[in-house]
Amino acid sequence: MERKVLITDCADAPGLITKITGICFAHGLNIIKNSEFVDNAQGRFFMRTELEGQFDEQLFLQQIDSVLPAQSHRRLVEHGKKRVVIMVTKEAHCLGDLLMKSYYGGLDIEIAAIIGNYDVLAPLADKFDIPFHYVDHNDLTRHQHEQKMLALIADYQPQYIILAKYMRVLTPEFVEQYPNQIINIHHSFLPAFVGAQPYRQAWERGVKIIGATAHFVNNCLDEGPIIKQDVIPVDHSYSAEALARCGRDVEKSVLSKAVQLVMQEDVIVYGNKTVVF
Amino acid sequence: MERKVLITDCADAPGLITKITGICFAHGLNIIKNSEFVDNAQGRFFMRTELEGQFDEQLFLQQIDSVLPAQSHRRLVEHGKKRVVIMVTKEAHCLGDLLMKSYYGGLDIEIAAIIGNYDVLAPLADKFDIPFHYVDHNDLTRHQHEQKMLALIADYQPQYIILAKYMRVLTPEFVEQYPNQIINIHHSFLPAFVGAQPYRQAWERGVKIIGATAHFVNNCLDEGPIIKQDVIPVDHSYSAEALARCGRDVEKSVLSKAVQLVMQEDVIVYGNKTVVF
Amino acid sequence: MERKVLITDCADAPGLITKITGICFAHGLNIIKNSEFVDNAQGRFFMRTELEGQFDEQLFLQQIDSVLPAQSHRRLVEHGKKRVVIMVTKEAHCLGDLLMKSYYGGLDIEIAAIIGNYDVLAPLADKFDIPFHYVDHNDLTRHQHEQKMLALIADYQPQYIILAKYMRVLTPEFVEQYPNQIINIHHSFLPAFVGAQPYRQAWERGVKIIGATAHFVNNCLDEGPIIKQDVIPVDHSYSAEALARCGRDVEKSVLSKAVQLVMQEDVIVYGNKTVVF
Amino acid sequence: MERKVLITDCADAPGLITKITGICFAHGLNIIKNSEFVDNAQGRFFMRTELEGQFDEQLFLQQIDSVLPAQSHRRLVEHGKKRVVIMVTKEAHCLGDLLMKSYYGGLDIEIAAIIGNYDVLAPLADKFDIPFHYVDHNDLTRHQHEQKMLALIADYQPQYIILAKYMRVLTPEFVEQYPNQIINIHHSFLPAFVGAQPYRQAWERGVKIIGATAHFVNNCLDEGPIIKQDVIPVDHSYSAEALARCGRDVEKSVLSKAVQLVMQEDVIVYGNKTVVF
Repeated sequence: MERKVLITDCADAPGLITKITGICFAHGLNIIKNSEFVDNAQGRFFMRTELEGQFDEQLFLQQIDSVLPAQSHRRLVEHGKKRVVIMVTKEAHCLGDLLMKSYYGGLDIEIAAIIGNYDVLAPLADKFDIPFHYVDHNDLTRHQHEQKMLALIADYQPQYIILAKYMRVLTPEFVEQYPNQIINIHHSFLPAFVGAQPYRQAWERGVKIIGATAHFVNNCLDEGPIIKQDVIPVDHSYSAEALARCGRDVEKSVLSKAVQLVMQEDVIVYGNKTVVF
Repeated sequence: MERKVLITDCADAPGLITKITGICFAHGLNIIKNSEFVDNAQGRFFMRTELEGQFDEQLFLQQIDSVLPAQSHRRLVEHGKKRVVIMVTKEAHCLGDLLMKSYYGGLDIEIAAIIGNYDVLAPLADKFDIPFHYVDHNDLTRHQHEQKMLALIADYQPQYIILAKYMRVLTPEFVEQYPNQIINIHHSFLPAFVGAQPYRQAWERGVKIIGATAHFVNNCLDEGPIIKQDVIPVDHSYSAEALARCGRDVEKSVLSKAVQLVMQEDVIVYGNKTVVF
Repeated sequence: MERKVLITDCADAPGLITKITGICFAHGLNIIKNSEFVDNAQGRFFMRTELEGQFDEQLFLQQIDSVLPAQSHRRLVEHGKKRVVIMVTKEAHCLGDLLMKSYYGGLDIEIAAIIGNYDVLAPLADKFDIPFHYVDHNDLTRHQHEQKMLALIADYQPQYIILAKYMRVLTPEFVEQYPNQIINIHHSFLPAFVGAQPYRQAWERGVKIIGATAHFVNNCLDEGPIIKQDVIPVDHSYSAEALARCGRDVEKSVLSKAVQLVMQEDVIVYGNKTVVF
Repeated sequence: MERKVLITDCADAPGLITKITGICFAHGLNIIKNSEFVDNAQGRFFMRTELEGQFDEQLFLQQIDSVLPAQSHRRLVEHGKKRVVIMVTKEAHCLGDLLMKSYYGGLDIEIAAIIGNYDVLAPLADKFDIPFHYVDHNDLTRHQHEQKMLALIADYQPQYIILAKYMRVLTPEFVEQYPNQIINIHHSFLPAFVGAQPYRQAWERGVKIIGATAHFVNNCLDEGPIIKQDVIPVDHSYSAEALARCGRDVEKSVLSKAVQLVMQEDVIVYGNKTVVF
């Protein structure tokens, strides 16, 4: 039995739940799970409807469109694994966790390829028989480097790109190719410690908690819609290096959780925020 | 503008969301928030619908009943403060937190009265001008003691009874007067350390985490539907007394959170479990 | 049996533990608990020694001084309740928690007085028979207002001042009267959301976690040594008001925990950081 | 520069810290970190002293022995990686995390070999070039099976054995070969849900939190000294399968943390409990 997810994002209006679920009912679909949220401050309606059954998708979507207000977004997507490309630099912990969880079925991703601006992680990719592409950024302009990577990525037709500690800033030209499809892990509890050497900053400030933030990438560095955050307690006895070591644990855990939420189609982006059902 | 909550709990069937929200729509009601859950293992449907508007409640409920399967439960309740009676023994921390949060508006309860089998906490009740009834259990049979308390409680017509560290076991006769209306705080992370002296047990076992559990009381001691649980980390340096002191913090916090969930009508009991929206 | 705490804070040097504990041993003192920390980055040694016994304190301290490097800090303090003055504005949650925990023995403080720049919380102070001083800041310069409060505070000779949501910035002149003796609760997970309306900022940024920070006050606003931080998870369904409501819970909890740590002499300030044993 | 850890575990007595640290001082050793704990209920003293320097170890230990009470335990161990053998059955998540963290330097272990009573995980071991021994338990008595594994293990001379979801109970004969050297991960927050199918039990009980427990194995099943516990919040919408999936995440995380604590020599076992510095 096929399982699909209908995501609706539109201006709030009376009767939306009735109308949308009514169409599902008319098509003989079984609603496995339905979640709604209304942002009253912005008058916006969000719904995620998990459906089971066989149906005429084209007709279904026409009918959905006919009951939604103007300028609505809706999409009907597969429930299941998504194809991703992972971008990395030198650090193994996030990539390692994604590979391992994917290997034993703990994550609904199919890793099509890994692209690195260093070749340090090629042996790790090899262990799991995933193609690794080394795209050195030396001797290339930023534009040339990104074009080379974009060409490679295009071959794999990924649904999402995961930045698993990819340590270079992507240009707006790159980002706009994959709007709300690039997931990044930021090494701090945003919006604290934006910028370089966050663990050094945290150590100097003497914080008692450190965290990590997974977010979609948009054109403002470290400023995209937050998907997931988590923290761990630390204390005075942690050096900057020890903070970084703990940070790696929370980074990999937050990134994996965020990726799974996105794969499950639990996340809707609106403005610079997310609804996470 | 009046705000009500419709709680529906019935056998799962096709089209329930459409039919129920359709009736809301037909009455011109604004759905502020809607939450559903289907327990597929048991084929049971749960929905919480927060409504705003003016409407013919009797007609509305007749129509709701007409679309629900046989043997359904539904209730239409006020959204807002509920009247409670609190039962205590000697410990102040849970009562104190309920009184203080109620005082500054952090909890949607109206404390009608406090009943104690000791008079230790009468001065605390006095500070907040809440009637305190001392019902000594000495020289009374368990039945007599409970009848005396039930008579007192009946005068206040509470919607819920909160056991804020009331340290005597209630009989089935007492409990059946207030089915799923009695909230208890249990001094452990159930089902661990059931029974007496849980912090002593925890210390002897050398656990690294202690917790507390808020649950509805049914006729099986420590076995009612769980509403909320929380834990805190501890270590070898905690004596049994230190564990108890930490335990008091987590007990009061878990009880207050559970009470607020119940007051907001976020909790549906089914079997020995809860749905908490 | 008297219990004292010796706090040592000095340049690191070989043999410090041996020498200091040797003096304790020579005085027939029982070491209940000993904790050390060396900040290798700064070459600084910290030790907290909890002692039981009767002894010649003057001689003891002379001997301690004779084994410490130049420019060392050491203090010998009572283990037990400390006298505090609490400063407030209008919000009741932090003051309420301090009053209630103090009332039932959950906090080692003796609240000598409460000072408010509004009189809103006077009735709450009255419930617990604590003197409340209303010092209106209208029609006074900042200097005059602070001098009036300082004069009042001086009468009570507090060991610490707790800012329980006191919403005005204290001047350096005020702060230097009580160096590392003023404990503040900041309504965010510092260093995120410094400044006004942190819950509004958090809502706009769409964070998935909010927090609170208790710190000593120094002359840099929101920048003093951090004592304790904690967080709670939130989601898209929280309005700015709901975030603030949750924030109040975490604020009161973090402040109470920080106060207890300071009262127990578990906290040593150095530079802009703390060691919390 | 060599780094060693001195672990002392003896009856409490006056002057122990002075005497022990005095010997370190006399040998010109630098104390990097010193931690003590006195269990006042049992009159027992524990100390962990991290030392740097070059010294006559035999003389040092003779001197230490001369100042300790009768029936003391002390050991002087290397600070650094330990050699381990991992035992598994079919589940990959715990083994995978240990392999991956070991690969990128996130864990101070050298995995000498992996032994499985099924061969399912052999390919995973191969990826990391670790010898995998398949010891089928079919057609063997429990005694024969264990003897075969013990013989294999003996070849590798491991300092610790890690049960990474090894799903058979070890006999006392096996366990006594490696006293307090076998680390197990238990799929629940002990002492709740002892026994089979803990996630099914948790689902039936409707708990709001699930956890995992890492402990040393002794002769009482699920009853050895606890090293580390952690929990994650769950809700009514989790099926027994979803609970198990979440459980796997917390299991692997708790096991890895416990292993690292033991490798760092931060853990002392006494009776059925641990001191974790």
